[in-house]
Amino acid sequence: MALSVEKTPTGREYKVKDMSQADFGRLELDLAEVEMPGLMACRAEFGPSQPFKGARISGSLHMTIQTAVLIETLTALGAEVRWCSCNIFSTQDHAAAAIARDSAAVFAWKGETLQEYWWCTERCLDWGPGGGPDLIVDDGGDATLLIHEGVKAEEEFEKTGKVPDPASTDNAEFQLVLALIRDGLKADPKRFHRMKERLVGVSEETTTGVKRLYQMEATGTLLFPAINVNDSVTKSKFDNLYGCRHSLPDGLMRATDVMIAGKVAVVCGYGDVGKGCASALKQAGARVIVTEIDPICALQALMEGIPVLTLEDVVAEADIFVTTTGNKDIIMVDHMLKMKNNAIVCNIGHFDNEIDMHGLETFPGVKRITIKPQTDRWVFPGTNSGIIVLAEGRLMNLGCATGHPSFVMSCSFTNQVIAQLELWNERATGKYEKKVYVLPKHLDEKVAALHLGKLGANLTKLKPAQAEYIGVPVEGPYKPAHYRY
Amino acid sequence: MALSVEKTPTGREYKVKDMSQADFGRLELDLAEVEMPGLMACRAEFGPSQPFKGARISGSLHMTIQTAVLIETLTALGAEVRWCSCNIFSTQDHAAAAIARDSAAVFAWKGETLQEYWWCTERCLDWGPGGGPDLIVDDGGDATLLIHEGVKAEEEFEKTGKVPDPASTDNAEFQLVLALIRDGLKADPKRFHRMKERLVGVSEETTTGVKRLYQMEATGTLLFPAINVNDSVTKSKFDNLYGCRHSLPDGLMRATDVMIAGKVAVVCGYGDVGKGCASALKQAGARVIVTEIDPICALQALMEGIPVLTLEDVVAEADIFVTTTGNKDIIMVDHMLKMKNNAIVCNIGHFDNEIDMHGLETFPGVKRITIKPQTDRWVFPGTNSGIIVLAEGRLMNLGCATGHPSFVMSCSFTNQVIAQLELWNERATGKYEKKVYVLPKHLDEKVAALHLGKLGANLTKLKPAQAEYIGVPVEGPYKPAHYRY
Amino acid sequence: MALSVEKTPTGREYKVKDMSQADFGRLELDLAEVEMPGLMACRAEFGPSQPFKGARISGSLHMTIQTAVLIETLTALGAEVRWCSCNIFSTQDHAAAAIARDSAAVFAWKGETLQEYWWCTERCLDWGPGGGPDLIVDDGGDATLLIHEGVKAEEEFEKTGKVPDPASTDNAEFQLVLALIRDGLKADPKRFHRMKERLVGVSEETTTGVKRLYQMEATGTLLFPAINVNDSVTKSKFDNLYGCRHSLPDGLMRATDVMIAGKVAVVCGYGDVGKGCASALKQAGARVIVTEIDPICALQALMEGIPVLTLEDVVAEADIFVTTTGNKDIIMVDHMLKMKNNAIVCNIGHFDNEIDMHGLETFPGVKRITIKPQTDRWVFPGTNSGIIVLAEGRLMNLGCATGHPSFVMSCSFTNQVIAQLELWNERATGKYEKKVYVLPKHLDEKVAALHLGKLGANLTKLKPAQAEYIGVPVEGPYKPAHYRY
Amino acid sequence: MALSVEKTPTGREYKVKDMSQADFGRLELDLAEVEMPGLMACRAEFGPSQPFKGARISGSLHMTIQTAVLIETLTALGAEVRWCSCNIFSTQDHAAAAIARDSAAVFAWKGETLQEYWWCTERCLDWGPGGGPDLIVDDGGDATLLIHEGVKAEEEFEKTGKVPDPASTDNAEFQLVLALIRDGLKADPKRFHRMKERLVGVSEETTTGVKRLYQMEATGTLLFPAINVNDSVTKSKFDNLYGCRHSLPDGLMRATDVMIAGKVAVVCGYGDVGKGCASALKQAGARVIVTEIDPICALQALMEGIPVLTLEDVVAEADIFVTTTGNKDIIMVDHMLKMKNNAIVCNIGHFDNEIDMHGLETFPGVKRITIKPQTDRWVFPGTNSGIIVLAEGRLMNLGCATGHPSFVMSCSFTNQVIAQLELWNERATGKYEKKVYVLPKHLDEKVAALHLGKLGANLTKLKPAQAEYIGVPVEGPYKPAHYRY
Repeated sequence: MALSVEKTPTGREYKVKDMSQADFGRLELDLAEVEMPGLMACRAEFGPSQPFKGARISGSLHMTIQTAVLIETLTALGAEVRWCSCNIFSTQDHAAAAIARDSAAVFAWKGETLQEYWWCTERCLDWGPGGGPDLIVDDGGDATLLIHEGVKAEEEFEKTGKVPDPASTDNAEFQLVLALIRDGLKADPKRFHRMKERLVGVSEETTTGVKRLYQMEATGTLLFPAINVNDSVTKSKFDNLYGCRHSLPDGLMRATDVMIAGKVAVVCGYGDVGKGCASALKQAGARVIVTEIDPICALQALMEGIPVLTLEDVVAEADIFVTTTGNKDIIMVDHMLKMKNNAIVCNIGHFDNEIDMHGLETFPGVKRITIKPQTDRWVFPGTNSGIIVLAEGRLMNLGCATGHPSFVMSCSFTNQVIAQLELWNERATGKYEKKVYVLPKHLDEKVAALHLGKLGANLTKLKPAQAEYIGVPVEGPYKPAHYRY
Repeated sequence: MALSVEKTPTGREYKVKDMSQADFGRLELDLAEVEMPGLMACRAEFGPSQPFKGARISGSLHMTIQTAVLIETLTALGAEVRWCSCNIFSTQDHAAAAIARDSAAVFAWKGETLQEYWWCTERCLDWGPGGGPDLIVDDGGDATLLIHEGVKAEEEFEKTGKVPDPASTDNAEFQLVLALIRDGLKADPKRFHRMKERLVGVSEETTTGVKRLYQMEATGTLLFPAINVNDSVTKSKFDNLYGCRHSLPDGLMRATDVMIAGKVAVVCGYGDVGKGCASALKQAGARVIVTEIDPICALQALMEGIPVLTLEDVVAEADIFVTTTGNKDIIMVDHMLKMKNNAIVCNIGHFDNEIDMHGLETFPGVKRITIKPQTDRWVFPGTNSGIIVLAEGRLMNLGCATGHPSFVMSCSFTNQVIAQLELWNERATGKYEKKVYVLPKHLDEKVAALHLGKLGANLTKLKPAQAEYIGVPVEGPYKPAHYRY
Repeated sequence: MALSVEKTPTGREYKVKDMSQADFGRLELDLAEVEMPGLMACRAEFGPSQPFKGARISGSLHMTIQTAVLIETLTALGAEVRWCSCNIFSTQDHAAAAIARDSAAVFAWKGETLQEYWWCTERCLDWGPGGGPDLIVDDGGDATLLIHEGVKAEEEFEKTGKVPDPASTDNAEFQLVLALIRDGLKADPKRFHRMKERLVGVSEETTTGVKRLYQMEATGTLLFPAINVNDSVTKSKFDNLYGCRHSLPDGLMRATDVMIAGKVAVVCGYGDVGKGCASALKQAGARVIVTEIDPICALQALMEGIPVLTLEDVVAEADIFVTTTGNKDIIMVDHMLKMKNNAIVCNIGHFDNEIDMHGLETFPGVKRITIKPQTDRWVFPGTNSGIIVLAEGRLMNLGCATGHPSFVMSCSFTNQVIAQLELWNERATGKYEKKVYVLPKHLDEKVAALHLGKLGANLTKLKPAQAEYIGVPVEGPYKPAHYRY
Repeated sequence: MALSVEKTPTGREYKVKDMSQADFGRLELDLAEVEMPGLMACRAEFGPSQPFKGARISGSLHMTIQTAVLIETLTALGAEVRWCSCNIFSTQDHAAAAIARDSAAVFAWKGETLQEYWWCTERCLDWGPGGGPDLIVDDGGDATLLIHEGVKAEEEFEKTGKVPDPASTDNAEFQLVLALIRDGLKADPKRFHRMKERLVGVSEETTTGVKRLYQMEATGTLLFPAINVNDSVTKSKFDNLYGCRHSLPDGLMRATDVMIAGKVAVVCGYGDVGKGCASALKQAGARVIVTEIDPICALQALMEGIPVLTLEDVVAEADIFVTTTGNKDIIMVDHMLKMKNNAIVCNIGHFDNEIDMHGLETFPGVKRITIKPQTDRWVFPGTNSGIIVLAEGRLMNLGCATGHPSFVMSCSFTNQVIAQLELWNERATGKYEKKVYVLPKHLDEKVAALHLGKLGANLTKLKPAQAEYIGVPVEGPYKPAHYRY
């Protein structure tokens, strides 16, 4: 692969699509800062003391305008930062350019190949001979995965001299990961070990990434402490829910201009993401149907007036299909064959394997007509009937629109900043073991509090007698850990 | 107090308002059974094996039609049952009559005095010389409180010969509790000890009651195991939320016939109950304002388009005030003085101390005009301006309407049945210590599953490969314990 | 029929259920006045000049608390008033008592037989030897019908000596009307003619009544001028829509306590009433389905996310059925036979013939179980399966609850007052012929304006240059006649 | 102005931005056809008989994908067509290219200057020496205006020899119109007269354009028959309402990516467009405030829970301002000076004079920062505070997004096709005078009916006895003319 790193006049590395978009990126960054009060409050509170002085942070997270404000919050607190995107379509090129020019090493562009994607991830983690990052900001866990797989391969290589064999897996993307590790192994059989040694910890953003971390914790294979940012209330109940409520219709409109009112829309999964999607579609005038495996979430849908059926029940009648499950094999090519002409199929869950893209792409005689980037009509052979697939089955809100809006990302990213600070400040105290932690509730409440002023809210103060009556401190936290909001 | 217990022809004790309403109660019970699939499924699954054979169950829980179906589910499973209401206004007299005639010992009527209320509670716990109940079904914790206070008094009496002094407290209701214990102490200084000895455990229904239990657990004073039914997802995220969404407007309409559309409504507290209330009012066309102490709940309100202000900000402009906090001293008489003429003030949280009824009742020169039972207009002296207080500050959905509808109570009460079964089945195994427990998630999911058929839902089955991919059993449970729904 | 008129100490006639409820009625009247700013503004504006001095007004309109405020507005403006209800179940007995005692001659009680109903209507129109009323306030057109049928019969009798023959019609209710006219004819063969001579005009409230009037206008048989109050925007787009949005769930809850969330509800008809009902049910968490004959209304439902199907499509799956059509034969007994057990069937359209009550009542072997007044379970033979019919197929919001709330009725009734004033003031000018008129738009806008202050609204004033730009007067009216709102 | 007409290989004239986008346009046209069942039904029903054979149609209407399907429906029915856009920002260049290449003469591109705009309008009307079009499809009335002003100028010139003087008006755009007429007058002093002679009629699409037509009818200056398509129910209650409900958030998101949830949004005007906008914003989680001059519309807003205030009341607190009035001078530069930093100001009403763009542009020291096309930040001098204006004050849904979606435009445009057919078919019968007409209700109902199948609806058939009962034909129309839906 003929990719080469470029350098700014000051010598910082980068690889972006078009550096001339940096000014445009900066204008949108300026607007976004006004919408991200949590991050700006972090700059005001912590900036003067430079707590990240000396810290190297690598981030693998959609390289959008909002992420750019996060990055510049980290650098404002003293960190050095390298960044890549965690999705081949999610980079906003003007954001990447502005950050590359002004603030951090960026390796990201909209429309990477998978091979380019992993090259970017490797660049992001590579801080040169001195090893890797001190801290990782992760989204979906790909940076964490690469290090864990790298360490595993180096151990095997040390013991047996064997290198990873891409042919050992069917998964095309994982083949690339193994090849990348294999190729690096020869040049430096200890670089992932050095990374592991240096690493203080990771903070992870998504349901999917967190699930991987808990699995590694359970099997004792987690190599460093992790903070589960996803399960901060101010993340999962805001970003996942209200973010998707905003960005799902945004993506649908930009990609297809289709009238949502009057249509039948199927939302696969009724977790936080599904709830946001179903709410948005319903309010836009669609008739929404939910599919669920979990009877509790199913009953929630029913209480909101949404029928719960199987995909098979409705596949031939629906106009729009959205996967939100975080699971795989939700909409298969056999389902697609039964859909109405021009049914829209998209994913806002996590990975593109929610939709059987492989089955579709390899269906004999299928014809792909690209309407515009990220909007493809697939026509089945012997018919004039086709379906419209968004963002090649990847996150449609990032592929077809610009992801979640700044305000809700400010909640998520303020959690990230606080988690990174916590890991860094406690790096020598032993407070965090090789386990997965959530942020304490008072920090979660603090994140929320930082976002109230912008919306003109006026909180009620608890009186001491009231605090005593319900058994909480006057200043919070106000709820038990198990409280569900 | 000249109350006397009556007896059915078969010798079962009771005290209800009007036994002639039993037929009417039975007709409504028949309707309710169709709406309570969870309870009916328990009867079908467990009835034949009579698991409660030999168990005495005392319940302190609103004596409504829905509770009647719960009671007859317990008796269908073999239990003997005694019952009282946990609120002076919440009994439905026809439900009480039907149960008293047909199924269990009931001591409850709509419009008890506080003194009568505690007499009923005492009757409910008194199984005669052989001690008390084996199990308690509690709502708000009054039955549990009485036993704990009783035991404490008996211990003090044994040690020091002192009896409780009602004058030691300002709380008028607690004075009655102390007097009741004091009076019983002379006759039988060990009856609460005998109750404690026999008791296998309690299952508790409400946020408020659960809070008391955790406080007792924390201070080591809890006398028997407790199952926190409130925090089953199928309870707190259904009954509290969807139940109140239904019963708040129901209570408002029956009590005042007021047009909700166009009005300004203040909801104090945005927990599950507050969320349900705010949703109902908003959908009926009110402009809703929320007051909150918790920044996270406040931010949730804002994301739904609901402003968050303090009561002081809006007290003079609003038309309807609803307390949902579970805390005390929310709306004080000073607030009431600033309200518009005919502002409606009501409570759907838990205790009547959310509203400063004492301050209102003792305000010099205030005049109370009873429009109809549970609907009073209070006119301040020197004005023609008054406010309308519902249910004397107690739960307005039970005082002014009929409480939550059967279907959602079926979720809550199926949890109760399962909790009671769990306590009883494990009574000899030592599984449950003197602590507070929640039901395991698979039982929570089972409760939900039992309610899907009635609503025509069709669940998707997880495929084994999918289950493995997300790391859950094919049959569930599907979510980690911390999942918030 | 052994009904006899009673008299107040001052000699005013009445027939109500229970005069002792007058105080309770007065308390609720006091509350309602605060919620009816339009009527109170009429009292303030017109009261001093006593414009109705000398006018006799007969009203046939649900004798509720709200109507009581209307009646006392008419009397405050100088009128003498006689009143009956226009529905056998819609009277609120405390309202009737308060008016009978304090303000006007009332003949109405909840639960009249049809025979009693027409007796009341006759009493209402009978002002003694001097003939009938000067003005009629009508709702559904029964008062107008009686006079038209009476005049027709008197003409026939004069010409041919024939009297009406009740056996000439199958319609049981119309048989009663003919019998009543026949019986009166013998005693006084000219009384309806005298009524007609005196009558200045009628103002009519409902879609159904208005339809009758236009039909009479078209055939040249209308005997006096009529003002169509129904089609004031501030009536049909408020009372019909927002009134029903409020009172449909109110009636359902009071009658059945059923949980609306999760249920499948069929709304037959998507006019203003149907729109209000569908909105209420949807917002309460039901899955709503609409049936329609009109493709435009159907497309409106679809744009709101509501499927449009036929009753046959969904009769076996739905839980709640509501008729709102103003047409007949909507839900037939054959439909009822296919419904689920305990399906709820009710009518909020206009007449009870929307539901095939005759077919149900005469179905061989059907069993009627009255749960409580206005709530009947009908069980079909050979099954344990039944349906629940509300208010015997008549208006369920008035039969099972208290009708529309005061605020929205203030809009409707202010139109009535203005229409009555218009007819009376122009009684000698010939402005109104024997035709049907709607109120001019500036009066419609005035009615709205009178209701804004209570809700804290602040209207924008049009600047002269803006008014000129859009070609309207600065003070309105602001819209062309065909504007649809 | 150095604009020159280009020609296709077949000699058809055009001027578009980029002919290479024609393939992309065709792909989107193919998708749109599936979403426009009314237009496709017209092709199927009327195509074979070629009713427009020989008719020249000129259209001035946003040159979008949806309009392209309209144009190709007109050509499929036999018409020859010339087209321009009615808004400088509303053209979709790929749609223009596809039509220019394949179907009709197009003069339109996104981002015309005003001078270019009127050049395009002139080109659209100019069919060569033989005069102008037979029929006009108008949106906003600019084509109609040009002809009326042209005829007026020619008459004046004939009488007095005077030519129009652009300096006679302050309105910059009207100066261009006068200059254009003046310049043409010298070359050919009768061309607008020839156009007038040939013209059979116009069908007009918008509230604004219709207002102009009624004013001309009232003053007797209307030169040819006009059909008011705007007031077809299937236009004004669908396109205006549901179209804006869709395209307002679409425009906001594409232009600013701002989170709508939690924001305060002011909607100026609560007509059909305002209702759609308010509904969309509310459902997205904004707190919506409406300003209104009309008390009836104001009361409607209040019934939906939306406060009605003046702009002055809220100008300093709101985040988003939307004008929907069709009037001028709604948001003045003095208002803008009081707004919060980065408040968003946009117009979806009709002309850009709803917002005081002139006042803003000429404010001393104001600085304009173009974030991206159609999204400008205006910073006031001496502050860092600015506001964000979309689409330079013009229609933001067309300037910043792609306008209304196909399905709802199919309703509007099917009315256009039917109106054009009606004018053309009756061109010799004298049925239409120089007046403004609306389509008869049965055609309105037909338009709706053509759109039901796509959404899976199943209409109920009226039975003859029912039709008779309510006095309508079995096949409709079902409602009186004054019915408001």
